[in-house]
Amino acid sequence: MSKEILGGYSARVRALLSKHGVEAFSRVSLALDDGRVIEGIVLPRPEFGDPDVLVVKLDNGYNIGIDVDRVKELKLVSPHRPAPLVELRLPHLKPGLPKVCMVSTGGTIASRIDYKTGAVYPFFSAEEIYSMIPELEDLAFIKAETLFSIFSEDMSPQHWERLAERIYETFEREKPTGVIVAHGTDTMAYSAAAMAFALRDLPGPVVFVGAQRSSDRPSSDTALNVICAVKTAVEAPFGESVIVMHGSPSDDFCLVHRGVKARKCHTSRRDAFRSVNDLPLAIVRPGGPITVTNHRYRPRNPQGPTLLNGFESKVALVKFYPGMGSELIETLVDKGYRGIVLEGTGLGHIATRLIPTVRRAVEDGVVVVMTSQCLWGRINMNVYRTGVELIKAGVVPAEDMLPETAYVKLSWVLAHTTDPQEARELMLKNMAFEINPRNEERYYPPVWWGLDVGA
Amino acid sequence: MSKEILGGYSARVRALLSKHGVEAFSRVSLALDDGRVIEGIVLPRPEFGDPDVLVVKLDNGYNIGIDVDRVKELKLVSPHRPAPLVELRLPHLKPGLPKVCMVSTGGTIASRIDYKTGAVYPFFSAEEIYSMIPELEDLAFIKAETLFSIFSEDMSPQHWERLAERIYETFEREKPTGVIVAHGTDTMAYSAAAMAFALRDLPGPVVFVGAQRSSDRPSSDTALNVICAVKTAVEAPFGESVIVMHGSPSDDFCLVHRGVKARKCHTSRRDAFRSVNDLPLAIVRPGGPITVTNHRYRPRNPQGPTLLNGFESKVALVKFYPGMGSELIETLVDKGYRGIVLEGTGLGHIATRLIPTVRRAVEDGVVVVMTSQCLWGRINMNVYRTGVELIKAGVVPAEDMLPETAYVKLSWVLAHTTDPQEARELMLKNMAFEINPRNEERYYPPVWWGLDVGA
Repeated sequence: MSKEILGGYSARVRALLSKHGVEAFSRVSLALDDGRVIEGIVLPRPEFGDPDVLVVKLDNGYNIGIDVDRVKELKLVSPHRPAPLVELRLPHLKPGLPKVCMVSTGGTIASRIDYKTGAVYPFFSAEEIYSMIPELEDLAFIKAETLFSIFSEDMSPQHWERLAERIYETFEREKPTGVIVAHGTDTMAYSAAAMAFALRDLPGPVVFVGAQRSSDRPSSDTALNVICAVKTAVEAPFGESVIVMHGSPSDDFCLVHRGVKARKCHTSRRDAFRSVNDLPLAIVRPGGPITVTNHRYRPRNPQGPTLLNGFESKVALVKFYPGMGSELIETLVDKGYRGIVLEGTGLGHIATRLIPTVRRAVEDGVVVVMTSQCLWGRINMNVYRTGVELIKAGVVPAEDMLPETAYVKLSWVLAHTTDPQEARELMLKNMAFEINPRNEERYYPPVWWGLDVGA
Repeated sequence: MSKEILGGYSARVRALLSKHGVEAFSRVSLALDDGRVIEGIVLPRPEFGDPDVLVVKLDNGYNIGIDVDRVKELKLVSPHRPAPLVELRLPHLKPGLPKVCMVSTGGTIASRIDYKTGAVYPFFSAEEIYSMIPELEDLAFIKAETLFSIFSEDMSPQHWERLAERIYETFEREKPTGVIVAHGTDTMAYSAAAMAFALRDLPGPVVFVGAQRSSDRPSSDTALNVICAVKTAVEAPFGESVIVMHGSPSDDFCLVHRGVKARKCHTSRRDAFRSVNDLPLAIVRPGGPITVTNHRYRPRNPQGPTLLNGFESKVALVKFYPGMGSELIETLVDKGYRGIVLEGTGLGHIATRLIPTVRRAVEDGVVVVMTSQCLWGRINMNVYRTGVELIKAGVVPAEDMLPETAYVKLSWVLAHTTDPQEARELMLKNMAFEINPRNEERYYPPVWWGLDVGA
């Protein structure tokens, strides 16, 4: 079986491995052309991987791809010892537990590589989830299914539509207390925002959860995140699309972020997500009750859900930078794009010389929306001349919306109206708390964080 | 004189004003078509303003532009009373004060509208600076000049070249202890990064300073920022390009941020700037000594400066988003762009379907660099398949560089080499501490900031 698994590699790679008696999950030592020596476990070729690149799992848990041309010497350290699969314990669930449905889309959380063998386990069967996180047996009756198995950077407006439909059907059919979406963290905030616009009157929360480190690594954040996500699905009063992830680098609590107000702000930390221009909705500790920290939320609606599905693909997010030419906006107009979200500077500015290009785009029926690359704060295009002229050109000031949320919202809006003027009005209408009329001092962490600034 | 100043407005606007005896700086009351009544001071038409839009300064200090078609009724509240200009005090400077040169590029800090009259004063003559901020008389002998008078969103690589040249000449000719650059805050971090690459071996700091609120507003941050900038220019040990702005919302201290590691993170707060993936270099209080908070810095070099000028305009910054098509990258390649900085997700990803487009761009000689829209953290393209394939396609992982800094650096690099391979190597070579090999816990503020998370 292990030999078959290596079948995806090129003939050259297979010949090299076979010559040294290496099977899938054998431990090998590789001397590379730059003098480095690497030791680890040979993994099967990933589905879309380069057939000439050998993938080895290092002892630190990371996978590394090595072009076979770079291998000067290969040694078999130890042959493949088939390890027992994780022991699937059919959970002995108490009767009357609340039901939680899980929909998996892919990402780090939805795959698990056994640390010792390198074997890839699908994670999202209910039995496997209970086996890995036995604490869940006291919390909920879990039904799990896999909708997609993709990296989250491959999500698209079409995927949002399919996901919204599936969540809607799941609420209708299963009547769960909440639906959990397992999702890669990279674009989780975009998808969580999309569900906020497509799914209304939710009878329970749509809870996005992910992992920054895969569950085979000792420092994995999967267990705490899933436990807190299930607690949120069961106990939280929110009828909103939310993200539940670590609230600190320790394994002590998670935060519930509103999907339309959250973003991934760190490439690797477990507490990568933060609410921007809003407070997190709640603190969740595995052992205690949920503490609501933001009382501006939509409660569960037992009459729901309502599906308002549809996302327009011909929408773009364009970040402005000093020296930017007009080509990018012009190309989008030429290619028939119906909406452009600009990520401008400060209160909502772009270079003066681009204003005529933007004006022409608006005249061509393109809905142009202004957000800020500052991320924190609010668009105000009445303060400086550039802003005033952009408003006059028909640009919509997106208040305190994140650029990512404004992009998702514009995609949703343009699937629901063909009238640019109506689209502009809808962009400024608060639908899912994506526009927060209040500014609070504590939304913005102080810049002197981490410094001893004295008295 | 006041009537002449109104000459920039259209005949319709002038007719309306003249009919009611309104001059520039008269106080008027305007009834608008939406029922609002606005009172304020009529300002001269801005240089590039719409001639049909009347600009009125409100009592809260903001200017508002009102299309003349929207004015239902206009009343003269009080005629223009010429107010005395700020009294220019020729400062009585102690002999032997350190010399500081100021170069103004424009922005909020470089213009001042008298709160009572609405008159616009140029700010950057030394006399005016001393008159407005008398504390400076004890700190430095200031020489000031205006290089540009533009909004910072209109800065471009060509402006960076002229600014670098001027700063270089100023150090050579005037031998100041430091050069201060007055700059709009919107793109200040881009320009400060540009100076870090173009100016080396600095005998003193290049200190960017700006204002989030103009000096005619009671809450202006100008005075504290300028005082701290001058103190930094005189006393700080840094031979680097830095940004000095408020460190808190109060008028108590400023922080010195390294230009290549700083960004504007709030649209309007005085403490809008923060260091990302680095600590601020120092805390500056007006009354006390400078406290160095980051000992990894380049000290003043008495033998300097060296000018390594040049910025390539055919470089773009492109933010990835889910659903992004290949048109934007293809257009840049077709238009002869030599470099593209991608702002990807997470550890450095874009959609799998875009990888062939990126590969073709690289094959065409375009230098493609990966940064993260997370902003905090570090690119690591060896963890997931998408990253591995992008590396294989020739994409340069920009470590912990901000997308904005990577864009500026690539513009600088491509002005100094025509060889893509050399450019890729230079992008990964640390030149001005834009790459920080260390990650420290305290670089990233906790996501639970502002919440009571209990024990």
